[in-house]
Amino acid sequence: MTALASDTTRDSDAATGGDVSVVLGIDVGGSSVKHLLARSDSSTARPPTPLARGRNATPTSSPANGLAEIVERVRGDRTLTRLVLSIPGIVDEQNGVVVRSANIPALDGTPLGRQLADALGVPVDVINDGHAAAVAEASWGAGAGIDDVFVLALGTGIAGAHVIDGRVVSGAHGSAGELGHITIDPNGRDCSCGRRGCLETIIGAPALHAAWADAGGKGGPEELLEAFASGDGTATAIVRRAASALAEALLTLCALVDPGAIVIGGGLAQAPHHLVMLAERYVRERATFHRVPPIVPATLGGWAGANGTVLTALLRQHAAAHRTPRTVA
Amino acid sequence: MTALASDTTRDSDAATGGDVSVVLGIDVGGSSVKHLLARSDSSTARPPTPLARGRNATPTSSPANGLAEIVERVRGDRTLTRLVLSIPGIVDEQNGVVVRSANIPALDGTPLGRQLADALGVPVDVINDGHAAAVAEASWGAGAGIDDVFVLALGTGIAGAHVIDGRVVSGAHGSAGELGHITIDPNGRDCSCGRRGCLETIIGAPALHAAWADAGGKGGPEELLEAFASGDGTATAIVRRAASALAEALLTLCALVDPGAIVIGGGLAQAPHHLVMLAERYVRERATFHRVPPIVPATLGGWAGANGTVLTALLRQHAAAHRTPRTVA
Ligand SMILES: [Zn+2]
Ligand SMILES: [Zn+2]
Repeated sequence: MTALASDTTRDSDAATGGDVSVVLGIDVGGSSVKHLLARSDSSTARPPTPLARGRNATPTSSPANGLAEIVERVRGDRTLTRLVLSIPGIVDEQNGVVVRSANIPALDGTPLGRQLADALGVPVDVINDGHAAAVAEASWGAGAGIDDVFVLALGTGIAGAHVIDGRVVSGAHGSAGELGHITIDPNGRDCSCGRRGCLETIIGAPALHAAWADAGGKGGPEELLEAFASGDGTATAIVRRAASALAEALLTLCALVDPGAIVIGGGLAQAPHHLVMLAERYVRERATFHRVPPIVPATLGGWAGANGTVLTALLRQHAAAHRTPRTVA
Repeated sequence: MTALASDTTRDSDAATGGDVSVVLGIDVGGSSVKHLLARSDSSTARPPTPLARGRNATPTSSPANGLAEIVERVRGDRTLTRLVLSIPGIVDEQNGVVVRSANIPALDGTPLGRQLADALGVPVDVINDGHAAAVAEASWGAGAGIDDVFVLALGTGIAGAHVIDGRVVSGAHGSAGELGHITIDPNGRDCSCGRRGCLETIIGAPALHAAWADAGGKGGPEELLEAFASGDGTATAIVRRAASALAEALLTLCALVDPGAIVIGGGLAQAPHHLVMLAERYVRERATFHRVPPIVPATLGGWAGANGTVLTALLRQHAAAHRTPRTVA
């Protein structure tokens, strides 16, 4: 064990150490693992100043051991009170089991939470990476100050998470928030989910890529959005159709869930936010009885997930600290 | 004040009375007012045995006074600890104000909660009638034993309410659950909400009535469902289209909200439940990634609203009783 983290980048471990109680949040991605270390008594009102912040290559062959080594290195001689990891894929958050992870197949079916808790001797939670990013955006990002926020990630897939008071409302079977797979065009294209005309078949990155290529456009969704910004007619038609479909999905969301804010992140929602702004305009134009909340771009970018793991660690740490033994009268 | 309630029907006041602490639930309908009186210490685990149960004509000219008189009569000499009323229409539940009530225009804009609290000297809550019916169905009706229930009422309009742990999740602006106004057919008919092709334009009672009349059918939705049951081809086509639209809405609900049960009541969901059963079959046939929960008919019928007011009164009564003064260490 050492406080040095020689293979991490942008790390600030060296400046601190010693007898400090800390929580650690780790965002496990397909290629890199980001970590954020914070004092256990940090407020959850805003992002804490990290005691350490860094990035390592994702250990793909023996991930549980590799992750434990990263944790040991980052915590150094500090007292670690809680570890939270986010994993891309389907996670049984209740039991800390990675059900399936497309990017890190070696984790499939792994009781990662228990394995790491045994190896490290601290409480460990494992959460879905989309949920981690969503709680961070809702509490510390674009949704800060609003209790009830729906966070949407637009990329290859479309993931949604409804966050109330810092917690994801994940549904009776943990599968709420699938805005990408509600039907927008009943006569539309086949979707990866087995149905037809889902939002994702119109606005998912592969769908935009295909529509742009079919129309003779060069490059992918990024080039499509650039062409749209420069007034290209073909790109405008494709982006308008995508924004229109997104607007319809958001109107359904407002009718059914009535969130206090809608935060949109992911690769397709990057600055200068053309798609989000156009969808927002369509929603306001088409709304009738709907209570349309602020619709705003996400602000935390690539560190949203890591922030969400730290936030989750702090919330659970504080909840555990307040759980005092009951007295019998 | 008297324990007699001579103008009520099916009342059982006479059998009890004296020094008993009670809560009163009142379901105010367009034509009649139903009341249920229960001991304040009743369990919320199941419907309490009512100390009184009855029905009066709705006081339409001076409704607040008329309702106060009903309360005085029903409570008799018992100690009333809390009153909850349900009202058809838009209710500001936080402030006990009837914003708008189509059936009882004299109530529009009335601070009914405060008026009755002043007149009666007890805490009074005013809730939406759909919410009242929903919490009752979720806790004491078809959803009993399940924590997370979406309750849908199919009638002239379509009202939905997501009930978690006995409370309606009403959204950031109190307007969640509008399943009747999500788009099913983007090219469909104009809807009363100002949009087009909403679920209500296909399966609302007026829509079914019109479709049946256009096809030469006699009578309304009830006769349509009877003709469907007897195998009439025209009725079958109309009912199948309605059930199909409902199934699409329920698949959207499962994708976005992921409830633990779906309970369907209202005039169009009456026994023998043809529409509900057909919609349920379509949902199961069409589901792919969706976690389809039990989809069942409501069981409390016309007394769901009154039961919901009593349940709400008991829950708030118990919550108030447990709110003990904080001690300063
Ligand atoms: Zn799909
Ligand atoms: Zn509508």
